[in-house]
Amino acid sequence: MRGAYCDGTTVRLRDELPFPEPGPGEVVLRVRMAGICDTDLQLARGYMGFRGVLGHEFVGQNESGARVTAEINNACHHCPTCQAGRPQHCPHRTVLGILNHDGAMADYVRVPARNLHTVPDALDDREAVFIEPLAAAFRVTEQLELTSDVRLAVVGDGKLGLLCAWVARLTGAQVSLVGKHPAKLALAGGGIATHTLGALNSLRASFDVVVDCTGSPTGLPTALTLVRPCGTVVLKTTVAGNYEVSLAPIVIDEVRVIGSRCGPFPKAIAALASRQVDVWPLIGAEFDLSEAESAFRAAGEKGARKILIRV
Amino acid sequence: MRGAYCDGTTVRLRDELPFPEPGPGEVVLRVRMAGICDTDLQLARGYMGFRGVLGHEFVGQNESGARVTAEINNACHHCPTCQAGRPQHCPHRTVLGILNHDGAMADYVRVPARNLHTVPDALDDREAVFIEPLAAAFRVTEQLELTSDVRLAVVGDGKLGLLCAWVARLTGAQVSLVGKHPAKLALAGGGIATHTLGALNSLRASFDVVVDCTGSPTGLPTALTLVRPCGTVVLKTTVAGNYEVSLAPIVIDEVRVIGSRCGPFPKAIAALASRQVDVWPLIGAEFDLSEAESAFRAAGEKGARKILIRV
Repeated sequence: MRGAYCDGTTVRLRDELPFPEPGPGEVVLRVRMAGICDTDLQLARGYMGFRGVLGHEFVGQNESGARVTAEINNACHHCPTCQAGRPQHCPHRTVLGILNHDGAMADYVRVPARNLHTVPDALDDREAVFIEPLAAAFRVTEQLELTSDVRLAVVGDGKLGLLCAWVARLTGAQVSLVGKHPAKLALAGGGIATHTLGALNSLRASFDVVVDCTGSPTGLPTALTLVRPCGTVVLKTTVAGNYEVSLAPIVIDEVRVIGSRCGPFPKAIAALASRQVDVWPLIGAEFDLSEAESAFRAAGEKGARKILIRV
Repeated sequence: MRGAYCDGTTVRLRDELPFPEPGPGEVVLRVRMAGICDTDLQLARGYMGFRGVLGHEFVGQNESGARVTAEINNACHHCPTCQAGRPQHCPHRTVLGILNHDGAMADYVRVPARNLHTVPDALDDREAVFIEPLAAAFRVTEQLELTSDVRLAVVGDGKLGLLCAWVARLTGAQVSLVGKHPAKLALAGGGIATHTLGALNSLRASFDVVVDCTGSPTGLPTALTLVRPCGTVVLKTTVAGNYEVSLAPIVIDEVRVIGSRCGPFPKAIAALASRQVDVWPLIGAEFDLSEAESAFRAAGEKGARKILIRV
């Protein structure tokens, strides 16, 4: 079969990949569409040392033709971490298209049956590809109590930043989006204040919660500038490798810094199906799987919207 | 009057300092004893750009001869941060012996009257000097709910590390102390498991809460190794300047990192007076104020216990 294969330095289309063999409890899905996310671009450059088929945002169909997607953490469900209710942190886990498990930018993908979620008819395939990143945005609402008296800023006006801002707005929180690109900030829509980074000084210590979606080493220092003493910074994006940072402000201002990763698929599916979140403005070009290499080039361009791969 | 004066590169005894002029709401105390803490050593090397008399751990006496100590943050009590109940984070604050306010390693010191706490007769001056750092250790118990099912590790076997371990033990939590120095680990006493850093790999992801008291750039990476997924790291010590660190584990393991600074004096006073915490094993040499320069040299020696300055 065909697949977009990461060898740690680049991504190329291969057409001689073996058909996935389902392990115990796994099913094989026919992939319909997958999205390229910034993590894929990082993996393609060698992050995590991943070798295999990329793709963890996708919609496929099962044997009976029903459309499904899947959570990405494949846990053992037996170890102490799983038993403690944190299967997404299982030390034995594989992660779809990220860690020791081939992803969904291929004709077929195997996933644990217990990870499946049905995609409602109301959702287009293009929208369904956003279930995974939108769930990650909803993770913040599981970790923090966001109410109408919370002043929340999202830093980073990329796709994940916009998703986080929209999810935060649903909670009634007072949401600001801080970014570099006026064109992207303009996508935020009603009810969200937007600021460019030039306004940073005037916004100093103005927010109870700051969500870093920059994917950049400058994200944390910016967030620490924006957050009030005893406030909370959510790190939503990873930055590969070591980088220089001063952590003294965390201690002096007694800030809480919380890492945030994968989130609840049902909430994301419900928000898309009910049109509470509209992801259409985030969608860029669409490529056929046979054009996977061009798709990755397009996704790597500055300011790219979500690049979709049709299988 | 005399005082141990920091000029940003060194500490020297000066004897021509002006008698402190109390501002509105301030009182002047005759200092009896002060302690040298690691922050003082950092300030002496230029941290925070402080110029003035050092000393924020002390016991003095007021006009009527009663022994008192004082909280170190001098807030405006009017700004939004103060009104929100966080005077210790007042952006207009001065900090005793640390920020724009002369400290207590002098014949006299001025402090806000509202910051005063009476030192019970049961406490020796030497013990009373520990009220401030012990209060900082109690701060952790205000920020986190520590109960008997919490596995907590303190990293760093210095004075603050031992104080934090002892305070955590009072909560009933299962406490481990991880450090470099067998002689210091031996001070932990009953009910606290001790480990050298060589045991790090076997302790990986074993703790719900890890308190970094190392004062070292290696503290956070060590803490992130020890903490379980979704666990909490408390940063109790500041490290001056930028340093290289990988923050990806915070995101991937969804760790909470919490800065922790000054704490409740009444709890510290009560714990000392009731002998729940015994600080005598932490006390090193005692110097007269006239020997302040020697005192700072002694405090800077590897493995030094608390150096006291008698005024």
